[in-house]
Amino acid sequence: MNKRIQRIFENIEQKPDAIIIKNRSEPYIDENFFYVTGLNKGLFEGSIALIYPTGDIKLLVSHLESEIAKKTNAEIIVCKKKEEYEKNLKENLKNLNTVGMNYYKLIHTDYLYLSKILENKFIDVSKSFIKTRTIKDEDEINNIKQACRISDKVVEFIPDLLKDGITENDLAAEIDYLLMKNGAEKPAFDTISTFAENTALPHFTHSEKEIEKQGFVLCDFGACYNKYNSDITRTFVYGNITQKHKRMVEVVKEAQQVGFETAEVGVQANLVHKKVEEYINNTEFKDLFIHSTGHSLGLLVHDGGVGFTPDDETILEENMVLTIEPGVYLPGFGGVRIEDDVIIKKQGIKKLSKAKKIFI
Amino acid sequence: MNKRIQRIFENIEQKPDAIIIKNRSEPYIDENFFYVTGLNKGLFEGSIALIYPTGDIKLLVSHLESEIAKKTNAEIIVCKKKEEYEKNLKENLKNLNTVGMNYYKLIHTDYLYLSKILENKFIDVSKSFIKTRTIKDEDEINNIKQACRISDKVVEFIPDLLKDGITENDLAAEIDYLLMKNGAEKPAFDTISTFAENTALPHFTHSEKEIEKQGFVLCDFGACYNKYNSDITRTFVYGNITQKHKRMVEVVKEAQQVGFETAEVGVQANLVHKKVEEYINNTEFKDLFIHSTGHSLGLLVHDGGVGFTPDDETILEENMVLTIEPGVYLPGFGGVRIEDDVIIKKQGIKKLSKAKKIFI
Repeated sequence: MNKRIQRIFENIEQKPDAIIIKNRSEPYIDENFFYVTGLNKGLFEGSIALIYPTGDIKLLVSHLESEIAKKTNAEIIVCKKKEEYEKNLKENLKNLNTVGMNYYKLIHTDYLYLSKILENKFIDVSKSFIKTRTIKDEDEINNIKQACRISDKVVEFIPDLLKDGITENDLAAEIDYLLMKNGAEKPAFDTISTFAENTALPHFTHSEKEIEKQGFVLCDFGACYNKYNSDITRTFVYGNITQKHKRMVEVVKEAQQVGFETAEVGVQANLVHKKVEEYINNTEFKDLFIHSTGHSLGLLVHDGGVGFTPDDETILEENMVLTIEPGVYLPGFGGVRIEDDVIIKKQGIKKLSKAKKIFI
Repeated sequence: MNKRIQRIFENIEQKPDAIIIKNRSEPYIDENFFYVTGLNKGLFEGSIALIYPTGDIKLLVSHLESEIAKKTNAEIIVCKKKEEYEKNLKENLKNLNTVGMNYYKLIHTDYLYLSKILENKFIDVSKSFIKTRTIKDEDEINNIKQACRISDKVVEFIPDLLKDGITENDLAAEIDYLLMKNGAEKPAFDTISTFAENTALPHFTHSEKEIEKQGFVLCDFGACYNKYNSDITRTFVYGNITQKHKRMVEVVKEAQQVGFETAEVGVQANLVHKKVEEYINNTEFKDLFIHSTGHSLGLLVHDGGVGFTPDDETILEENMVLTIEPGVYLPGFGGVRIEDDVIIKKQGIKKLSKAKKIFI
């Protein structure tokens, strides 16, 4: 019995007789295809997964991906042309009443297409996918841990990379290279490597800007391992460290500690954000923390379902995995962000990212 | 007057009074947002572009992206919360009759949401976006050319990277590093770097496999520059080259030449595939060319609208940009693929990728 599929159906009030997960071409691939199959390789463009309340899976895939698909317990149906996908879809759903779909990842064109060829009643099951995936199982936790180990290793190399003349682009290239050399399939997302005043722009990735003495260096990146992601941020100073730099880092570190101490089973997610924000707003850096405190992490870097945001009332449960990433941003001067990945446990959080280097 | 917007409306039979382009979070970002604005930086998660038959644009964006958005001629409306996006959307569309949407990139959840809050009549304009984008304008061509120059440079380095002990993963890391060091924002897609029998699997990316003497090395990668992509494949041999290797490369090179000579203004796209396939099927490698001959290239690596596939009856027009990438795959032995990016011109094709190294 596939426990993930079991949980997906358990989390739906009016259970459908089957659920369709339908991929388009890159990047419109529903990551739930990988969640329900447990597959960690392959692209599966155009593939379809049918899952049933019994825990059974059927996969409609092209010849090119059929070998990879065989690594699952699923029944594999190899389809060559659009007509074959259609025929198999109809046959496998014809005697069923309601069919669930993930409206949150289904493009409207596909919704119209499926409405045309199928006679079942459709229901939206997107909330169940999101909710189910907030609680990570053992395999998922192991993959995230491994992704964290890779990004932890990369952090250790960063101080030695900081030399006169290096640009933000260069540093991004070095970080991505180190991620892959240390076992990542790819970077988890577009690496952020910013210098000096650019560190005050949380959304800026990297540019031709050269490193500056007495400026912050902010690196926010992650590893993708078996399709699971890590996400870490460390802020350094290049050259002389002033009292202002020190104080900013100190406040952000302490704010993160407040986050660590607040996050535990039974607490509302927004409380973590409120406490962290409150801490920063009680310092001289009032109103300079301009984003949320953290997000759920997994198959997606922003995995959904729970986040340390102002409005998220989700109650924290055991085995949720989130980031805790307070920051302080002084426009024109620079910003500090420190981000770690944590798992919620009964006794409080446990840190999954363990890189010690925060400041040089 | 924004010519891209003008062409988008020209390519719609029943013209709507406005078109909504609505982004979700990564990776569900509609690249047409960047097409109509001309923006080449920023993420614009959750942003909305409204375009009008007059060529006007209005952008609903968050505070974080408003600075980047100012680089356009668009009217910028900064929105903080979901309610503000909703209010501005309603206000700007309230006196209009029909509103176009890109059903092909709109998730069904958003379609339902927009249906609920707006009273306009919706029409699907996805075909116009796809069609308009098949013909590249000067800025687009320049960006693709620059992306090609970067991947061309990287090709030159590959032979020197091939040494005993190197793994497919290592080679992917080196290629991605070189792409970024030579000016790419990021790799255009997951780099393929396969060795020996793995080169016979066109969808395989890379693994821990070590290089093998007397085996093929297949590298398929591209650069992303100003959000535009290149896509090149070169196949090498490590160690001694046998007659069999030579012959496979020879056939694929000649097949590609057939593609170059067939592709010109006025020809049906599928003719290019047919001629290339026919050429290969008249050799000892009959039925070993197992994919299409090429795809449209631009803001997406698979840009849509036209492709050298068995069924595509699109008539080739000036300034379409496509790849030409025949291959021959011998299961258990290895595969050869050679891919170049070309622009369709009245006199025939012009090669945009120019790396000379094909075989060593």
